[in-house]
Amino acid sequence: MSVTAAAGFRAAGVTAGLKHSGNPDLALVVNDGPQHAAAAVFTSNRVVGAPVLWSRQCIQDGVARAVVLNSGSANVCTGPGGFQDSHATAEAVAAALGIGPIDVLVASTGVIGVRLKREKLLAGIPVAAAALADDEAAGAAAASAIMTTDTVPKVSVRTVATAAGEFTIGGMAKGAGMLAPALATMLCVITTDAVVPDGDEGAALLDRALRDATATTFDRIDSDGCMSTSDTVVLMASGASGVQPAEAELAAAVRAVAADLAAQLLADAEGASHDIAITVTGATTDDAALAVARAISRSNLVKTAVYGNDPNWGRILAQVGTVPESVAPYDPDQLDVSVNGVMVCRAGGAHEDPAGVDMAANRLVTILVDLHAGDAEVTLLTNDLTHAYVEENSAYTS
Amino acid sequence: MSVTAAAGFRAAGVTAGLKHSGNPDLALVVNDGPQHAAAAVFTSNRVVGAPVLWSRQCIQDGVARAVVLNSGSANVCTGPGGFQDSHATAEAVAAALGIGPIDVLVASTGVIGVRLKREKLLAGIPVAAAALADDEAAGAAAASAIMTTDTVPKVSVRTVATAAGEFTIGGMAKGAGMLAPALATMLCVITTDAVVPDGDEGAALLDRALRDATATTFDRIDSDGCMSTSDTVVLMASGASGVQPAEAELAAAVRAVAADLAAQLLADAEGASHDIAITVTGATTDDAALAVARAISRSNLVKTAVYGNDPNWGRILAQVGTVPESVAPYDPDQLDVSVNGVMVCRAGGAHEDPAGVDMAANRLVTILVDLHAGDAEVTLLTNDLTHAYVEENSAYTS
Repeated sequence: MSVTAAAGFRAAGVTAGLKHSGNPDLALVVNDGPQHAAAAVFTSNRVVGAPVLWSRQCIQDGVARAVVLNSGSANVCTGPGGFQDSHATAEAVAAALGIGPIDVLVASTGVIGVRLKREKLLAGIPVAAAALADDEAAGAAAASAIMTTDTVPKVSVRTVATAAGEFTIGGMAKGAGMLAPALATMLCVITTDAVVPDGDEGAALLDRALRDATATTFDRIDSDGCMSTSDTVVLMASGASGVQPAEAELAAAVRAVAADLAAQLLADAEGASHDIAITVTGATTDDAALAVARAISRSNLVKTAVYGNDPNWGRILAQVGTVPESVAPYDPDQLDVSVNGVMVCRAGGAHEDPAGVDMAANRLVTILVDLHAGDAEVTLLTNDLTHAYVEENSAYTS
Repeated sequence: MSVTAAAGFRAAGVTAGLKHSGNPDLALVVNDGPQHAAAAVFTSNRVVGAPVLWSRQCIQDGVARAVVLNSGSANVCTGPGGFQDSHATAEAVAAALGIGPIDVLVASTGVIGVRLKREKLLAGIPVAAAALADDEAAGAAAASAIMTTDTVPKVSVRTVATAAGEFTIGGMAKGAGMLAPALATMLCVITTDAVVPDGDEGAALLDRALRDATATTFDRIDSDGCMSTSDTVVLMASGASGVQPAEAELAAAVRAVAADLAAQLLADAEGASHDIAITVTGATTDDAALAVARAISRSNLVKTAVYGNDPNWGRILAQVGTVPESVAPYDPDQLDVSVNGVMVCRAGGAHEDPAGVDMAANRLVTILVDLHAGDAEVTLLTNDLTHAYVEENSAYTS
């Protein structure tokens, strides 16, 4: 069902001809209200695509009536002409729906540094508008149209019972856990029919819920440490259920959908043979735990060792050691490391025999590092570094 | 000639039996004076080997009479027993040479988390002491004995003519440009017969010269972003030439030898098919330029693109964009990128046709990024990410 599961939303996915493959490449998600509250989170990269520049402006007022997404071109590093392409795209959607262009968010994914095929995109918008529907097929079509190197569409739906009644939340996302050859981008649209307070108050509530959710889900999948120029996550509320949940109830639902989609992104990671769940516990703060987990997740030596099913705790400790004491206080002689539940390193030295660690049996590998410095714990998800990753990211020519 | 090129130094390289291969694995470098001034730089990792803990203490007084180096075991994460192994090694060298153990630096490289074969190492020390010689063969033997995954020994010698006369400086180093399966370590010993001021003044001069040299050479080869637990660079002066150069003359000589050895490390990088020279110019400060260069050098997407001979400037800009403005101010719309001299990106957008970039012809690939924000320029050397790197770092089992 994805984005059409919640009442008040229609979607479509069509082929505009932006992809060489001829696969669907244009998605449209429309909020029919009665409310049009929205929030969005974008990449923190300083080099961003024209769609991000456009959408950042549009979301300022906390209102969005539609999101148009295309695959086949990221429209990044394309200059003023590229920005005009995104602007024209919003204008075309606005004209087709009879709304204002400032209420139309734009998101693009695909090759960087190449102008998108503007005429084909603009010609496809009326086709998408005509195909808008609120059924399951329409939601599935939209989820498929935003795929690039994804092997499967990623969708998630939750129906939440509250004291006030039920509301529904659903979402779709695209992107490989590892960045794709053409800098494939993490795009996500989450819709809900929950009622939120009118005006800025409702938009602020959605913004808090979305930032909280992304900080603990999408921001904690770190596949190859490379930051995209186009990441966009949008949350829209239609109020069509007539049910107004408590902020905490809505926030929890957004987090659940985001977590589910994040896990699906990782499971579809290009070239990966293992997912790696890195848990850092005994840290003084969440930030300290996250810094240590990120240092481990970005080590090519750790990632290749996991690919080789080698519980190489020395490489893990070497990464822990790169985090400044000002960021993560700990005593190197107190560090414990467990891989798949086997404590191969205790108090900074060899402990149980690594031969007892079976890494080949499952896709998921768990790494637990105990800093013995505090009570904070964070889990970060990443992938191993494989021949397939090198192949997919080197064989490609732009 | 390496470490025996300078007058006043003897060296030896023998087989103690620490390596399964039976190759030479124990090196000894002795400063016969008349001066024994020394300086050393160690890894900044918080998780360090016992030899680093020992040698950091020894160098405090700015005096060193000998350096003993072994391959086959890094003696890292080996607890109090490991520290006793390093201490016993220094004691054995001191006994064999009739000097104090506090004047004996210890450096080890090899597998992490495993106790070294203490008895074999101690038994090898008298053999190494007996083999000490000041000739070319002895220097070559020492350079070979510290090799791990290196395919060739790395040595460098300079003779410098000054107003006061000639002095000689030479060095040896080991380590792959990319960290080896067992966290092979960058070890380097540089010797000179230059005269330095007596006492703390001379030691301080050597320390300044060594830190200046490493900051602009070894610290600017960043092969896979993984920091070792054992990096050790030692500089010793014997004064045997009777020539006291100006500090600037000595510093320049140390820098030249360090730069030569750093280039040799990179040229022998495991699995690499391309060296990559990343020059960031137009930066506000050297630190800003270095931060941007490091962000590029640590991108698996950039490194795999180079392996695929793809001048993928979008991946380069995406990395430039990850550096905070507080660290490196620039306008994303002013960024120029040239690959092998072809400006594929100008003012943040596509410029010359990437098809005109020939990356396959040479091992060296040059990436030039102009931030157009200032006058500072820094060059960082790295490697591409290849199938061979994944193979060598995943096939290994500790």
